[in-house]
Amino acid sequence: MLKVEHIGIAVKNMESANSLFGKLFNIEPYKLEKVESEGVSTSFFKMGETKIELLEAENEDSAIAKFIAKKGEGIHHIAYEVEDIEAEMKRLESEGFQLINKAPKKGADNKMVCFLHPKTTNGVLVELCQEIKS
Amino acid sequence: MLKVEHIGIAVKNMESANSLFGKLFNIEPYKLEKVESEGVSTSFFKMGETKIELLEAENEDSAIAKFIAKKGEGIHHIAYEVEDIEAEMKRLESEGFQLINKAPKKGADNKMVCFLHPKTTNGVLVELCQEIKS
Repeated sequence: MLKVEHIGIAVKNMESANSLFGKLFNIEPYKLEKVESEGVSTSFFKMGETKIELLEAENEDSAIAKFIAKKGEGIHHIAYEVEDIEAEMKRLESEGFQLINKAPKKGADNKMVCFLHPKTTNGVLVELCQEIKS
Repeated sequence: MLKVEHIGIAVKNMESANSLFGKLFNIEPYKLEKVESEGVSTSFFKMGETKIELLEAENEDSAIAKFIAKKGEGIHHIAYEVEDIEAEMKRLESEGFQLINKAPKKGADNKMVCFLHPKTTNGVLVELCQEIKS
């Protein structure tokens, strides 16, 4: 794994969360993006080589809506950048980690992503991500 | 704020967590440290410019024991490196954020630290930290 690519934070209301995190970091988000397949709106703040990704549910079926209903607003996942997502998925599965998606899927911010189940990662939802090369 | 200095993860058992995160990251922790004042043992993994800090409670009164009793193992806090912790504390308090400690205190890894209450930061326990210059 190369670095912490981003930290995902579940929020109830993107407008007020953008204002709050804007004050906290003293910067503005550099990108807003909807990920239709996941039913979420996202917002990104740059922080050194890492990003903070705010996530708001677009509908009640989205994983973010379910997370907030169960645990409240807060840190949702940590995403690590990898060089070769398929090789890393294979390595981690052989080490006993449970992959939530068996093939890489399209995520926000031009990335292919895979999630690891928190029950095999000490309660932390882990995302692997690899930049899509154009 | 300069960068995400580290992400703190609450664990029940440091030995098995070091083994688990060692397999996840495919690296070994570079440092183990007890922070007596906080009643915690810590372990650090380097990940690009950020670190992952595992936190195990040394006694039942530690904040980590209480966190795990309430929420289970998982992500505990995000720490941001700042240039001038006292100036940043002043700025954030004036923006309406609630400081948990009113003066910087000594944390792990040779840092002065201050925590912001999660009720003012969208459910995220935020740590500010500044390297102690020797």
